[in-house]
Amino acid sequence: MSTFGGIDLGGTKIQAAILDAKNKVLGSARRPTPTEGGPADVAKEMEGALRDAAKDAKVDPTKLTGLGVGSPGTIEDGSVTSARNLPGWEGSFPLAQTLEDSLGCKVRVGNDVRVATNAEFKLGAGRDSESLLGVFWGTGVGGGVILNGEPWLGRGAAGEIGHVVVEIGGARCTCGRLGCMEAYAGRAAMEAHVGDLIEKGHKTDLFKLMKERDRTRLTSGIWARALHHEDKLAGQVLDRAVRALGAGVASIVNVLDVESVVIGGGLGVRLGEPYAKRIEEAMLPHLFVDSRPPKVQVAELGDLGGAIGAVLLVQDEG
Amino acid sequence: MSTFGGIDLGGTKIQAAILDAKNKVLGSARRPTPTEGGPADVAKEMEGALRDAAKDAKVDPTKLTGLGVGSPGTIEDGSVTSARNLPGWEGSFPLAQTLEDSLGCKVRVGNDVRVATNAEFKLGAGRDSESLLGVFWGTGVGGGVILNGEPWLGRGAAGEIGHVVVEIGGARCTCGRLGCMEAYAGRAAMEAHVGDLIEKGHKTDLFKLMKERDRTRLTSGIWARALHHEDKLAGQVLDRAVRALGAGVASIVNVLDVESVVIGGGLGVRLGEPYAKRIEEAMLPHLFVDSRPPKVQVAELGDLGGAIGAVLLVQDEG
Repeated sequence: MSTFGGIDLGGTKIQAAILDAKNKVLGSARRPTPTEGGPADVAKEMEGALRDAAKDAKVDPTKLTGLGVGSPGTIEDGSVTSARNLPGWEGSFPLAQTLEDSLGCKVRVGNDVRVATNAEFKLGAGRDSESLLGVFWGTGVGGGVILNGEPWLGRGAAGEIGHVVVEIGGARCTCGRLGCMEAYAGRAAMEAHVGDLIEKGHKTDLFKLMKERDRTRLTSGIWARALHHEDKLAGQVLDRAVRALGAGVASIVNVLDVESVVIGGGLGVRLGEPYAKRIEEAMLPHLFVDSRPPKVQVAELGDLGGAIGAVLLVQDEG
Repeated sequence: MSTFGGIDLGGTKIQAAILDAKNKVLGSARRPTPTEGGPADVAKEMEGALRDAAKDAKVDPTKLTGLGVGSPGTIEDGSVTSARNLPGWEGSFPLAQTLEDSLGCKVRVGNDVRVATNAEFKLGAGRDSESLLGVFWGTGVGGGVILNGEPWLGRGAAGEIGHVVVEIGGARCTCGRLGCMEAYAGRAAMEAHVGDLIEKGHKTDLFKLMKERDRTRLTSGIWARALHHEDKLAGQVLDRAVRALGAGVASIVNVLDVESVVIGGGLGVRLGEPYAKRIEEAMLPHLFVDSRPPKVQVAELGDLGGAIGAVLLVQDEG
């Protein structure tokens, strides 16, 4: 039977998985995304993560039928340009070619959020819906739109829900704009916000927990731990994120009236059901048709959704 | 040659038009929407406006091939339910049947914003675009979405751009929610806001101009006059509206990445090019892909767009 590799390249972590032709996960592995260096260093870690996953699956990585990659940035012919949240990746880098050379199999690269949305639509929480909004709550906040069972891409850049404005003249976003939903809810923006609050004299154990866990940033896991420890500031910053997500996602639902909203991404998956429920509640006061809100669900494929969606890129080609 | 009637039922005015089979406007007429009474009174004025338009076109109103109506509210089988901004119209009223009985021709009723969007898409400013956002800036702020050349309706209630949140916990909207774009930009909300400002001691000639022109509310024409008179408060309230429209429309463009934005509605058409330009400028700081913003144009069919779109409802039926 054919085996496929999938890699989800995130701002925080590289998630790799090996699947068979029936989309059964045979093995997986994860490495942190390098915070320094450039695209070549990131590609090296991606190769490493894939080899780890192949080892976990007990398959020969050179025997894969194909490898799919979900990546941030602009993707054209396997090259990735201006991948935000990745180190030194302002220019263009031939990611598909680099991985083909190092791994010896066919590589296809797609937009990370789109492949993850597609995975949830075809195999996950959205499989009963014909219209869907994927909300990927992680380092940034990405969005995928499925309408009439097909991805809606617009002129190529649709789905930027992280940059829906929830507060005119509000908080500065990592993109430089003011008042974007991501400026309140993105992991990177939340971390910067916590730093500001500490400077102003607020107390939190977030960075202590980070060091204990030998991390260099406030990962989704650290946020979850801080909640578990009832860290007040962490709770407040997450409340602020939920409020922004509620308003921003409700705004889009008012315009698109989709059947389903699927909450994925590092934070979305880690904080899970209770937070999906809180986002749903935060949407309600802003929904124009509040008598039949869309289904709001956590991404079923969890952390592996991006990697599984990436596999669909090579499988779809046959 | 066949002749058709079209009526656009707005919160402020009833606009009627008579068209031939080639969509040439043969005559038109306008009456203010009643501010008191109920649906039957509104229907009576609609009949009157249509008879006025028929007189203007020199055609016999009983000889029309069909009459199309664009109406606010929820429309099902020619009945209109909970039409906001219309007097005493919380329940359901058989509008098509009532007009068929009084005028003696076939009547079709559609959603006002959708028929106006369709008219601009097929015959107006959007005719070169395959994807389009119609922004109807009037008593409220309505939206129509065209994707891949087809109206996108979602589960039936898509397009509520007036209720996109631009300010969490912000101004109270006429819908009761907080921070909606319409709470800043809708004519009704702006009028209420001006009232509040006057109570707080601010000065404006808006209501003086209203009385001079024998109006009972701040119509689009009164706003335009006040601008002409360089009324400072009117300018400020419109600046606030433009800021909200810029943020709200940019948010939707970030998600849908449409080719075109068409600005219609009473205020949109009356304030015209200079304000479409200002909205475009207000969008720019919020657009994620600001290197190729969508075309932003004033509705070409102007005040008659809604009535012309309503005609398309009966023409499409053959």
